[in-house]
Amino acid sequence: MCEKCQTRVIQAVTSDYESFETNIITRRELREDDIAIDIKYCGICHSDIHVVDNDFGSANFPIVPGHEITGVVSAVGSDVTKFKVGDRVGLGCFVDSCGVCEHCQNGDEQFCIEGVVVVFNSKGYDGELTYGGYANDIVVKDHFVIGIPDTLDLDVASPLLCAGVTTYNPMKKWNVGPGKKVGIIGMGGLGHLAVQFAHKMGAEVTVLGHSKGKNEEAKRFGADAYELTTEVETFNKLKGKFDFILNTVAVSLDVDAYVSLLKVNGAVVYVGLAGEPQTFHVGSLFGKQAILTASNVGGIAITEEMIQFAADNQVLPMIETIQANPKAVQEAYNRILASDVRYRFVIDMEIL
Amino acid sequence: MCEKCQTRVIQAVTSDYESFETNIITRRELREDDIAIDIKYCGICHSDIHVVDNDFGSANFPIVPGHEITGVVSAVGSDVTKFKVGDRVGLGCFVDSCGVCEHCQNGDEQFCIEGVVVVFNSKGYDGELTYGGYANDIVVKDHFVIGIPDTLDLDVASPLLCAGVTTYNPMKKWNVGPGKKVGIIGMGGLGHLAVQFAHKMGAEVTVLGHSKGKNEEAKRFGADAYELTTEVETFNKLKGKFDFILNTVAVSLDVDAYVSLLKVNGAVVYVGLAGEPQTFHVGSLFGKQAILTASNVGGIAITEEMIQFAADNQVLPMIETIQANPKAVQEAYNRILASDVRYRFVIDMEIL
Repeated sequence: MCEKCQTRVIQAVTSDYESFETNIITRRELREDDIAIDIKYCGICHSDIHVVDNDFGSANFPIVPGHEITGVVSAVGSDVTKFKVGDRVGLGCFVDSCGVCEHCQNGDEQFCIEGVVVVFNSKGYDGELTYGGYANDIVVKDHFVIGIPDTLDLDVASPLLCAGVTTYNPMKKWNVGPGKKVGIIGMGGLGHLAVQFAHKMGAEVTVLGHSKGKNEEAKRFGADAYELTTEVETFNKLKGKFDFILNTVAVSLDVDAYVSLLKVNGAVVYVGLAGEPQTFHVGSLFGKQAILTASNVGGIAITEEMIQFAADNQVLPMIETIQANPKAVQEAYNRILASDVRYRFVIDMEIL
Repeated sequence: MCEKCQTRVIQAVTSDYESFETNIITRRELREDDIAIDIKYCGICHSDIHVVDNDFGSANFPIVPGHEITGVVSAVGSDVTKFKVGDRVGLGCFVDSCGVCEHCQNGDEQFCIEGVVVVFNSKGYDGELTYGGYANDIVVKDHFVIGIPDTLDLDVASPLLCAGVTTYNPMKKWNVGPGKKVGIIGMGGLGHLAVQFAHKMGAEVTVLGHSKGKNEEAKRFGADAYELTTEVETFNKLKGKFDFILNTVAVSLDVDAYVSLLKVNGAVVYVGLAGEPQTFHVGSLFGKQAILTASNVGGIAITEEMIQFAADNQVLPMIETIQANPKAVQEAYNRILASDVRYRFVIDMEIL
């Protein structure tokens, strides 16, 4: 348990990855509804890199990234009944929201009208900046803590807290299940989980990728096929096949081409956040009432559901564990940017 | 009743509107499941003009347009039980489909896998071209004939068969109803019906238009407000307001601007078929899981439901009735192209 809530962290001092350094920060003292977590693992997500790079223009340095946190409860506030000391838990993107608006009440805290508070580089309702999971300890309101079933190892579980729910949530919303045909664009950090979830939900799954040589791995994740999007023939062969296509890559799509792969009433859902404008023709949508939409992580209730589903069905992120030091984090960031990770880095916090 | 199924028609001989002429054609003899309709009225739809203009590249001249048909049953085939001679009926866009594919079984004949047969300029399953409703009589398979309740006049009812179901169908699909806030882009032939349907479904309705001076008329149709899309302030004022926006105009949208008017999980639905590519940013959709989609008329079951709803709630197209002669049709086409109609032309077939 953190003493006086002081904790070691890895922080970015500037947007240069060489600026990562260790530091000691002080977490807030436990409030009545707070939980302190002894962090065991924290996944590295591409959006950590976006924030450190100041791609959204909102970076407040120093930044302690990290929103795929797993660990063990080390202390609880006086009102906490959800967890007790020793429980295995996780924490994802969100650490506070108003709790009373329609979206919070619906379990969509990410759309809180008062503004959801993100686990790092975000201003809390108390006016304090948040610092994330590249750390030994964190203190957070109980509502946002997720139980991790015993059948999930904490290292493997950590990417589920963001990448997992990001892919699970839209599949549930758009009724992926038995009898449905699902296309997953990209098989990276998000995609390799999307394939597993869709398969375990009972759908027929096709990976739409641009890398040769991923066929066998795709099939081990549960894909029924891996098709190359670099081949025009792929688009002819798969025309009208899919009920649902999840775009897990953050690059521009030929929207009309992917819509052509949909069935009537099918949907293309973006979870990869391409910055460039996307272009489509109304006529492409019209002939099949096709849907274009995007999905933004997921609230606490669906995250809890996802974690239980992952445990029950053994949806397991494939991870590469790294040491908790600035140099290892810097190297991981560079390898993510080079697409050189299969499929998700997880920081082992043991020796930070 | 048509003798030997000969009927007078108004046909376009070329894509020049001056080429409209009257003619006599022969309808097929009644099959067992056919109904002959003594046509009383036929609405003029913008898509009639598109086909005559050969905008879709599929014109087979001479063309007898018309897919908003109302009249009285004049004869029925031996197996017909749905209607009897003298019944007041309507006929919309579709006259045949396979009847057995999943879409036909779901009541979405417009997406028939074997191909839906359209009421004019379309090849039937018998290989014969279809000729539409600018005519005194038509013969059609019973399934596609819609009963018109006594509380709807046949002239007023005719635009419902296309414009009505085109706007009603997506509103039902996307759950327009009490407590929902609906924006209708454009208040023309489609829009003035969309306003009435949304209002009678119990929604709060805002017309988003570019014409000054339509406020009072919008309110008579049931709109709660009419806002000018030519004013930047409109987009600030209405930010985040709508659950559902229906685009009834066939011009390009500033998609991101309209998405900014949506609530979380809101939808922008195109029923106007803009030809130019539409552009959006994924980030616009992402922050609210916004939906972009299009809707294509509606099948027979939803058309029947719509007609009953229109009768029960007195959703009434505002029409201008014209005589059944080539010159009047030509003039109507030119006035539609000049947006000079409030809000729908209907041809009175009495003296054709």
